[in-house]
Formats: sequence, C-alpha cells, structure tokens
Amino acid sequence: MAVGDAARPVLHPVAGVRLGTVSAGIRRPGERDLVLIECTGSVRIAGVFTRNQFRAAPVRAAEAHLASDQPRYLLINTGNANAGTGAAGEAAVQSNCQALADTIGCRPTEVLPYSTGVIGEPLPAATINAALPAVQAALDENGWALAADGIRTTDTRPKGRSQQIALSGGTVTLTGIAKGSGMIRPDMATMLAFIATDADIEAGLLRQLLREATAVSFNRITVDGDTSTNDACTLIATGQSDVAVDSDSADRARFTEALQDLCQALAREIVADGEGATRLVSVEVIGAKRVAEAERVAFTVAESPLVKTAVFAGDPNWGRILAAVGRAGVDDLQVDGVAIAIDGLPIADQGGVSPRYDEALTCARMRADAFTITIDLGRGEQSATVWTCDLSYEYIRINAEYRS
Amino acid sequence: MAVGDAARPVLHPVAGVRLGTVSAGIRRPGERDLVLIECTGSVRIAGVFTRNQFRAAPVRAAEAHLASDQPRYLLINTGNANAGTGAAGEAAVQSNCQALADTIGCRPTEVLPYSTGVIGEPLPAATINAALPAVQAALDENGWALAADGIRTTDTRPKGRSQQIALSGGTVTLTGIAKGSGMIRPDMATMLAFIATDADIEAGLLRQLLREATAVSFNRITVDGDTSTNDACTLIATGQSDVAVDSDSADRARFTEALQDLCQALAREIVADGEGATRLVSVEVIGAKRVAEAERVAFTVAESPLVKTAVFAGDPNWGRILAAVGRAGVDDLQVDGVAIAIDGLPIADQGGVSPRYDEALTCARMRADAFTITIDLGRGEQSATVWTCDLSYEYIRINAEYRS
Repeated sequence: MAVGDAARPVLHPVAGVRLGTVSAGIRRPGERDLVLIECTGSVRIAGVFTRNQFRAAPVRAAEAHLASDQPRYLLINTGNANAGTGAAGEAAVQSNCQALADTIGCRPTEVLPYSTGVIGEPLPAATINAALPAVQAALDENGWALAADGIRTTDTRPKGRSQQIALSGGTVTLTGIAKGSGMIRPDMATMLAFIATDADIEAGLLRQLLREATAVSFNRITVDGDTSTNDACTLIATGQSDVAVDSDSADRARFTEALQDLCQALAREIVADGEGATRLVSVEVIGAKRVAEAERVAFTVAESPLVKTAVFAGDPNWGRILAAVGRAGVDDLQVDGVAIAIDGLPIADQGGVSPRYDEALTCARMRADAFTITIDLGRGEQSATVWTCDLSYEYIRINAEYRS
Repeated sequence: MAVGDAARPVLHPVAGVRLGTVSAGIRRPGERDLVLIECTGSVRIAGVFTRNQFRAAPVRAAEAHLASDQPRYLLINTGNANAGTGAAGEAAVQSNCQALADTIGCRPTEVLPYSTGVIGEPLPAATINAALPAVQAALDENGWALAADGIRTTDTRPKGRSQQIALSGGTVTLTGIAKGSGMIRPDMATMLAFIATDADIEAGLLRQLLREATAVSFNRITVDGDTSTNDACTLIATGQSDVAVDSDSADRARFTEALQDLCQALAREIVADGEGATRLVSVEVIGAKRVAEAERVAFTVAESPLVKTAVFAGDPNWGRILAAVGRAGVDDLQVDGVAIAIDGLPIADQGGVSPRYDEALTCARMRADAFTITIDLGRGEQSATVWTCDLSYEYIRINAEYRS
C-alpha cells in the first residue's frame, strides 16, 4: 500500500559516480539486496547519521571511516540491519570492508558500510563477501534506478529524484535515492539516502549543506515516531563538472534550494510509501514564536494516533487536532488565538469550531490522496512543516504479522 | 475488546457519599449517562486536572469552584466532553451548575461539573437540566456500581475498586471508580476518576496525597499517547468515620499505600480496557539515575507503535524495544550496559541478543494476557513502571470507523 502512483523520474547520471546492484542472497532469493557505489575524482563525502544510541555497527564504522580517511566506496546491504549484534556485528562489518578493499585494491577505511533490514540477526558477512566481485562488475554510471530498487526493505517502490542546476560556472547534476517505510522518525538523518552531485564543493561546506537540507526534509517526517538504529544520509560531491559551489555566492543559494527540494521530495516519497499509508498529510504550523516550537506542535499532531486514524477515516475530527496542539507543551499558548484549516478550509478558531466550517467540503478534501493541515498558533512569525501519513489496518498487519 | 475478565469487586459505601445515576438522553437512548455525587459532613475535596491547554469548559469551572468555594456536589455527564466549544460551552456548564443549585438548594459554585465524550459538539445543557430531579431522587449510598457504569464512554466495562484500611483510630473505607479507554496519556490526572474515603483528612494533606498517588498511577499509563482535554481525578474525604489521617504518622503511610494501590489498580484497569487492547504490559525500567529518566524510557517503549504491534503479535522483537530505549534521550547511555527481560526471561544484553535468550519460551510469555518488560539501564538505583497495552486492528476500527 502506498499513496498515489510511484514517481519514476529520470535519474541523471552524476559524473564520477558508478553504481552496481546485485542479488547476493541476503533477502529472499532473486531479490536485489547489495549495492556498491564507487566515487572517483576529487570526491568529498558528507554524512549524517541516526542519533539513536543503539547505533548499528555499520553506522559506527561509517562515521569512523569518514573521520579518519577519504572514503570512495559505499557498500549497502538490505535484508539485515546489523544492529543489536554486539561484537560479532562489528567483526562482520570489518570483514566486509576488508574483503571489498582486497577485491578492489583500496584501504578498508575507504569503504563506507550501510545496512538496513531486520534488527538483531547476525549479518551474513560471508554471503556479502562472496558477491563483491559481481557487484563490482555491475558498476555503471546509469545504475541509479537499479540501486534505488536494491536498497529497499518494506518499501513498496523505489524512490529517486534528479535535477540539473544552472550555476554561474555551468550546469551541475544532483541525483539522489532513498529508502524507508517504517521506523521512520528521523533525528538527524533518516532511513538511508544517497545523494550525489558533480559540483565541486569544499568538505566543510558540503557538511553544512547536508545538515541544512536534512533539517528541513528527512528530519521533518514521521511514519510511526520510531527513530531507526541505522538511519544515514550521505551526500557525495565529485567535482567532476569543474563547476564550484562556494559559500556566500548566489550559486550557493541556488544549489541549496535545489538540494533542499530534492531532499524534501525524497522525504515526502518515504512518507507516501509509509507502512500502510493511504494518505500523505502536510502538517504546517504557522504563527509560532520559534521554529522549534512550530516543529514540536507539528510533530505532536503528526504523530497522534487519534489524528492519524481520523485521517485514515477521512474524518475532519478537529477536536483530536486541537487536543494534540494542546498537549504539545507550548508555554502560555492562548487557545482562543489558535486557528486550524484543512487545505485552506477553516475548521476551528476561537477555541471551538469555526462558524465557516463546512463538514461535507472538508471531508471531501480529507479523502484525497494528499492534503495540508494548517495550524496557526497566532503568536509569532515562525513556521515549520512536517509530513506524515495515516494509521491504517495495513500498518498493524505489516508490523504484527511479520518480523521486520 | 479488553484484556482478561472484568473485575467486579464489591464497592463498599463511603459514609457521607451518595451517588445517583440516570439516563438523561445525552448518549444513545436508555444508556446511563448522568451521575450525581453528593457529599455531606465536613467534606474536603482535592482535584487534579489535565494539563492539556485546550481544557474543556467543565474542567475550568471545576478548578475555579474548588478554588473559590467548598463544593459538595459532583455532576458528571458522558456522551459529550463540552471541549472545544468556546463561549457557548462555558454558558452550558454554568447553566447546569445553576440548575442543580436551584434543584438542590445550594450555591452554583458548590457544584463540580465533569464531562466526557465527543469533543466539539454543543453540550445539550437543557437535556441535562431536565434530568436533575431524577438524578437527585436516585441518590443512594450504594450507588457506586451504577455510577461506574454511568461514566463510561468507549469503555467496555465499568471500573471500580474498594478497600477497608485499619488505622490506629479505627477502620476507614476507600472506594473509587474510573473511566477511560482512548485518548489516554495522562499528564496530571487522566480520564475521570472519583475516589472517596470517610477518613478525616486536612485539605492540604488531601491534595498532597492525591498528587502523590496520581504520579505513580494515572500518570504512568498510556493507551495511545494522547492527553485528553477533560482528564480529572477527584479525591473526596468526608471525615464521617471520625478517624483522622495526619501528616507524619504511621496511618499516613498506611493510607498512602492503600490509596496508591487503589489508583494503580484503577489505572491498570483503564489500560486493560484500552481501545482494542488484547494484552496489558508493564514496562518496568530499573537501574536509572533518576526517576524522570526511568519514566522517560518507560514511556518511550510503552508508546512505540512498533513495540505495541509486536506485543499484539506476541513477538519478542527485542530490536524494537532496544531501538526505542536508544531514542529516549538518555544522556551518555552505555548501550552495552542495558539488559532487557520479559517476565524475568533474559532477552538482550551487551548491546545484542542475550546468550540465554529462549525464543519459544519468551513467545509463550508474550502471548499471555499480561506480562512485564524489564529494562535495566545499569547506571543507577532509580526505577519507574508504566502500564500500556498493545496496538491492534481493533484500535484502528474504533478510531477510524466512529467519531469519538
């Protein structure tokens, strides 16, 4: 189940990046489950990782390798998260990095490992190692779509976005893929996302651009409020276009906007493909004193099971929205100043139902695939939008019938 | 749906308290929906109310009357929460208090109003007023069981507890009833609970006893993480036994323990009757540095949809528990020091699955009506227990198919 049709946009190749995808036999036979990304040139890589304290072994290794070396290979397996696996999990990830280094001829610390899938099962390191020659042989500049498929777990469809950006020095390409459907409440990055550009961007700026973009995209989505042990978002800049993005330039603003658009599109794709999702909801909080306050109210509404089941029902049960706003912990909230609308249709104001409320019209809007709940706190100029989905029978089925 | 059989304990009458219950026609025809509690003697009443900022009109009125007068009548309607109703809601509650004052011959501020049910619909004040003579005529010292039935909304069964406590000056009685099934994540009190004793307790101590008891009972339960607009817990002491409870006495300790036991029993009853609940889970966090830290971890686990669906499935998916602990925001948590057990059976330690883990045995425990998840943070001496239930198809049905 997923909201709307799968977007299958063209994924432009990025000069300096090749991707290989194979079926290594980690998941069900024949399913793609191993991806290798190779970066060449004066490549710089920035990464943000989950803040969950039970961070998986590959997350810890990837962070360490980014800090100590200049990685150029990303090895991603699905079907097993290698989380909650203790010392054996660390040994497995080192085995994979060493085996890839031996296959390719590089240092193990030039490899960034990523795993996603079931928590607490031993990672089949030998199975992965046996598939490394095949995944190396599959490396292809046009490998983005296959890789988007190869990193999926419970995702019902692959997620990718791509665009070309005209900068003062020439055109650069920005292409990204992501996976994620459950255990989605990023606190830093989320899920897995791999984004690459051929722009030339200095390492410190690259990290800053990634932090800024995740803050308003992957860090503003929720499916079930559960932050994963394996979330990671990686941004690669190969510099192969010879077009530079510098701080304080108009190009930086243009590139930032494009990167944030792309991250938001991927983030919304994750929510639209959230476990059991039938509707995609933007919860927009305006009139807040601070952005953090707007985010907090938006997340409280976006994660309320009562709001999410009302959305599943297509029922404008505004009392549930109002009750969630009321428990979001906003100091000195003047409840009479709060107004709620759905796709611009007034629902509640002055602490009660709006005199302009039209139930039939509002129900019709809420039965669309996607709509926006706007909450005006009426006390400031700041705002934030969080994307969420509904809570359906299918969510229960996915999470109660299968071990994920 | 509810966990286990309904407890129908004897509810001892409390000297000085009479209760009347009638069908006023607020809910479906013939259903009991209006309760009056009359307190006589040197009665003292303490109340704790929801911290939700969208507090219902009756909550605001009850607080004001408690602060300004010495109330002796509690008027409770179900079927309508009179929340999110603006100025009309305030007028409705004043109309009810005035009408009861006229019927009985008291001041309107001697009446504490309580409402529970749908949010945002106008309260049918005239319907309630018309039933006041009947509910007054129904007042009866043995009216507790009928009143427990009369305050229900989506509760599948009435909830009551009663005990007699031997104190140095004689025996006192403690009897309480509660309602609540959805929108349960108390932040102060929760739901509605009415508890009375014939002990003689000074007003300040009574408030303190109630705060202490709710902190470890109603404030430690969650069904869906949503804090209601109408939560209230009221403790009445009539003094009719002529047995006093004073600060700093052994009697105070005995009474405190009995009150906390009773509140915890009622609180667990609410979770066991949580919307769609099939299992009652105690989430016990030990080895914490502070109680607040233990509570935070326990609530994070208790509210995780992934943990709750695994409980519904009877699946010891400890990776989900571990991931929830990891995102609970405990500073400097040493993940290798965390151990998780289910009914004492070791599940996880050292950051991974326990070598003593027995899946078949653990599954069998998790398929019981009730079990305990114990999480040892291994960093201190503090602890807290939170009670929760599972997340089932029935929860979705209840909240998506009906406007509640």
